[in-house]
Amino acid sequence: MTLWQILESRFLWQSHWYSLRQDRLRTSAGDEFTYTLVDHPGAVWIVPVTRDEQVVLIRHYRYPVHDWCYEIPAGGLTPGSTPEQVAHRELQEEVGGEAAEMRYVGQFYTSNGISNEIAYVYLATGVELGEPHREPTELIETYLVPLEEALRMARAGEIKDGPSALALLWCEVPSVLGTGPLGPIRERIGLGTRR
Amino acid sequence: MTLWQILESRFLWQSHWYSLRQDRLRTSAGDEFTYTLVDHPGAVWIVPVTRDEQVVLIRHYRYPVHDWCYEIPAGGLTPGSTPEQVAHRELQEEVGGEAAEMRYVGQFYTSNGISNEIAYVYLATGVELGEPHREPTELIETYLVPLEEALRMARAGEIKDGPSALALLWCEVPSVLGTGPLGPIRERIGLGTRR
Repeated sequence: MTLWQILESRFLWQSHWYSLRQDRLRTSAGDEFTYTLVDHPGAVWIVPVTRDEQVVLIRHYRYPVHDWCYEIPAGGLTPGSTPEQVAHRELQEEVGGEAAEMRYVGQFYTSNGISNEIAYVYLATGVELGEPHREPTELIETYLVPLEEALRMARAGEIKDGPSALALLWCEVPSVLGTGPLGPIRERIGLGTRR
Repeated sequence: MTLWQILESRFLWQSHWYSLRQDRLRTSAGDEFTYTLVDHPGAVWIVPVTRDEQVVLIRHYRYPVHDWCYEIPAGGLTPGSTPEQVAHRELQEEVGGEAAEMRYVGQFYTSNGISNEIAYVYLATGVELGEPHREPTELIETYLVPLEEALRMARAGEIKDGPSALALLWCEVPSVLGTGPLGPIRERIGLGTRR
């Protein structure tokens, strides 16, 4: 629900991936101001885990930051597709992955001060890797990393893509508590017993 | 380092907070394409912890998502200020907080596919609260939450601002390991003994 009255809303720039929108707003006190935001369809981040509990990480060249980043597969929502369908599609396109199971873990805002993007997080288990179908400007290398090592990298800041790091930490395993690998997620999505 | 030759770079829209930039690029194979990105000065997220180990959370109305979000204090970098100075300033402005110590924890990219924003994370300890100095359109409520509860909220998706959740989880305390509150951060910044 918007707290402020929207007097006018117009796009300053539009594209297939995201747009720039400028809204003219009025508060209940009568003050008027302008808010310019990134209008984004949302995106999906997928934590892919193989049968032997390795995480499929990618190293991805990201032009905006001129940097190669360790990440998990991710991609924007497209019209007519559900987040779960996009999760399967991006896993296939970026690492050639097929998941035995795809489970919804949670969602967050990536940058709620300037963008309406929602990040949907999925856990893909029983993943088998095949041939990726990358676009020519997608510069991506694939790595298999033990689950505990991927979590260490997420905690240590070595996974510099924030949404990837948060998605991985949502799969964190307090194995010392005896819940076993992926225990907390099984609990959250109702597949295990709550402690 | 950019992998692609930048043929042209122009701003489609500019503001004090961020801008929209369009770059014309050429790959080493000679292909040309356009990349449009959010040009952002970077921002600071501060995990404020009081002397009795409560986290200062805010509940912030975020117009882009039309939602009230639990977050930690944060704000954009401004010319001539270091991230640490901005951390002190935002803590003061948003919750009236003064920190006994302000420590750098790490940094990540908030949205590296479309933006060059870097999020700098600081841990503010010994925080004492006073009068905030908020802007009229900053709708913010302050909450004191025990550290473990704040971490639970970050893991459970109740802190919907992704950068806030990741910043909090970087302060996670495996108290079962006997490292004590904030143990891992003490280790990371060299104040404790490495296990």
